[in-house]
Amino acid sequence: MKIFRLENIIDTEREVKGPGWTSRRLLLKKDGMGFSFHETIIPAGAELHLWYKNHLEAVYCVAGNGSIEDLATGEVHQIKDGTLYALDNHDRHILRGGTEDMRLICGFNPPVTGRETHDEDGSYNLVED
Amino acid sequence: MKIFRLENIIDTEREVKGPGWTSRRLLLKKDGMGFSFHETIIPAGAELHLWYKNHLEAVYCVAGNGSIEDLATGEVHQIKDGTLYALDNHDRHILRGGTEDMRLICGFNPPVTGRETHDEDGSYNLVED
Repeated sequence: MKIFRLENIIDTEREVKGPGWTSRRLLLKKDGMGFSFHETIIPAGAELHLWYKNHLEAVYCVAGNGSIEDLATGEVHQIKDGTLYALDNHDRHILRGGTEDMRLICGFNPPVTGRETHDEDGSYNLVED
Repeated sequence: MKIFRLENIIDTEREVKGPGWTSRRLLLKKDGMGFSFHETIIPAGAELHLWYKNHLEAVYCVAGNGSIEDLATGEVHQIKDGTLYALDNHDRHILRGGTEDMRLICGFNPPVTGRETHDEDGSYNLVED
């Protein structure tokens, strides 16, 4: 059994920030669960163009609000506490912050190693051990 | 891309209840993500004896409080908003509700199919398609 506490992750290498997002990596590949688990904060008004070509991602909102635009269809889905979106087809999308910061709980398969960077197209590269 | 909303899961077959827990299955095996994703509510004062012999489970608390007892070591870890526990060794444990209902976001590997039952020992059986 492993215990992780958010207060011990903030301001360490497990907290990663970029323009319009802050991600706390709660579980990484090395933790051996077969998926990684992150908490991501999207500030009100942010806009992120994302395309996880190499990963499947599920995202569950537990606070705040925003929206996701599916670039394959043009559909926009509102996000609020209790909304989950699953990128089961490596979907290109735009994630937009709303009127309050969004708190998102995210699962990635394959698990993120922590050494990925966002490519120019908004994806994470695949990192082998 | 798939969108699931908690309001559409409550009172359907994706909401499962037992003594001391309510689990909303947001993502199941059939959703094809390689892990399942659940929201589980543990009422204040509940006590659950659990042993997922067939699954790895990560659990992240986003509201409320409680504790987990590791039956291998006897250690008790307090759980509050921002605590994650990872059962990376199929750990036998007791989960206890605290003074406020706990809201837990859970990932399972392999993914739960939705047809599992809790065995007498507190585990889920494995269900093949």
